[in-house]
Amino acid sequence: MPTFKITIAYDGGRFVGWQRQAAGTSVQGLIEDALRVLDEDDVAVAGASRTDAGVHALGQVASFALRRTIAADVLRRALNSRLPDDVRIVSAEDVPASFHARFAVSRKTYRYRIWNADLLNPFEREHAWHVRGPLAIEAMQAAARVLEGRHDFAAFQAAAGTQRTTEREVYSSKVFAHADSRGADLGPSPACLITYEITGSGFLRHMVRTIAGSLLDVGQGRRSPEWLSEVLASCDRAQAGPTAPAHGLFLVGVDYAGPA
Amino acid sequence: MPTFKITIAYDGGRFVGWQRQAAGTSVQGLIEDALRVLDEDDVAVAGASRTDAGVHALGQVASFALRRTIAADVLRRALNSRLPDDVRIVSAEDVPASFHARFAVSRKTYRYRIWNADLLNPFEREHAWHVRGPLAIEAMQAAARVLEGRHDFAAFQAAAGTQRTTEREVYSSKVFAHADSRGADLGPSPACLITYEITGSGFLRHMVRTIAGSLLDVGQGRRSPEWLSEVLASCDRAQAGPTAPAHGLFLVGVDYAGPA
Repeated sequence: MPTFKITIAYDGGRFVGWQRQAAGTSVQGLIEDALRVLDEDDVAVAGASRTDAGVHALGQVASFALRRTIAADVLRRALNSRLPDDVRIVSAEDVPASFHARFAVSRKTYRYRIWNADLLNPFEREHAWHVRGPLAIEAMQAAARVLEGRHDFAAFQAAAGTQRTTEREVYSSKVFAHADSRGADLGPSPACLITYEITGSGFLRHMVRTIAGSLLDVGQGRRSPEWLSEVLASCDRAQAGPTAPAHGLFLVGVDYAGPA
Repeated sequence: MPTFKITIAYDGGRFVGWQRQAAGTSVQGLIEDALRVLDEDDVAVAGASRTDAGVHALGQVASFALRRTIAADVLRRALNSRLPDDVRIVSAEDVPASFHARFAVSRKTYRYRIWNADLLNPFEREHAWHVRGPLAIEAMQAAARVLEGRHDFAAFQAAAGTQRTTEREVYSSKVFAHADSRGADLGPSPACLITYEITGSGFLRHMVRTIAGSLLDVGQGRRSPEWLSEVLASCDRAQAGPTAPAHGLFLVGVDYAGPA
């Protein structure tokens, strides 16, 4: 059967997450429903990442097989015409039947956005965590680098995590400070967008949000950059910082090794 | 009575506009309701610009008088604590009782945002007009400049316009092309944000949106840049292009001459 790999961007605000749930609207559910119009049978769409409720994506990847033959770009357009505006199929391509969007992943990149200003920015309220008061960016940058390499990330896993192994490899873990990119000048304090970007072999549930919450503890001076090494070594979720809110998190992209 | 000038940012998506209406939520209504908690009488808030339903603001300005004495920054914080997240008081200052946010205006600046790419960007869907296909940016830039100076803008006025005079002075009228500022790479075609920015002594109803719609006619090659001079000279709304949608428009700021 013809197999397809699609790349999807979505504004996660109103969704229960990527994965189909008993109640609520999921991105997977919307795409499967859109595919139903094209194919006689129910199609199972496998996503690279089970993004949680409220998490956004610039480059989620999914795969599925169809009975009928259809050109990848025709498929992309047909899906976009059936999907709501907050979900867009960025690209679609034919892949070998052996390709599976989740199992074949070689690395994923996530971005966490922080709007750091006294004043909440109405235009960032749904896509960045609003944090007031000064942040020590250089300390956050030093702390972020501690996570690079192969480590046991059990301390940064959701309490209910049931992964086989909690060891992951982090290829890059960096904090960036930006000037406001929208040209808005919203308030008495200098408005500032701060982003945290992490690329790794795989991620545990809530891992990026727990790292973001811990980096904020460092930025606000409650903890030193070295503290993050201790948290990592403890393998104890209770040692890490709070879980940052979902609406600041973006799945940026997914890479695959090999032919697909 | 102590008089205040406030600067307001709002995401206009869910509002019937600045002005209080018989039905629906208005920004003026929200601010007046928030002030009611502070003052015994109903307070009338005068806005510099009656932004239409769906139009956004980075720097709307309003004025009002209170019976009680209150420090401007305490007032700002009290209002923000009572207002929803999509409306923020950016600043508040004491002004002479003679100050009136609408009558004292010396100039206003508006920005119109266009998301120009084959693929709709889910993160710009509520804050930019999505336009597919190539746009001739240089032709749009030449056309925009035609509007600078003192002219009769009757051709760019909403059909039901009832202004005393339709003559206005435009100090600056410019088109800019940007790379995508969010770092998103959303699609097969190079994504592109285009903005139109206009500063003038005053604006007729729908004037900026009619100009934006006309500039698009030029950008898509249906009209030449010189055509905009003919439209201006005609003083006939039927000669201009379509009214661009409200959700791409931002009131950027309002300037005042004199002591306030």
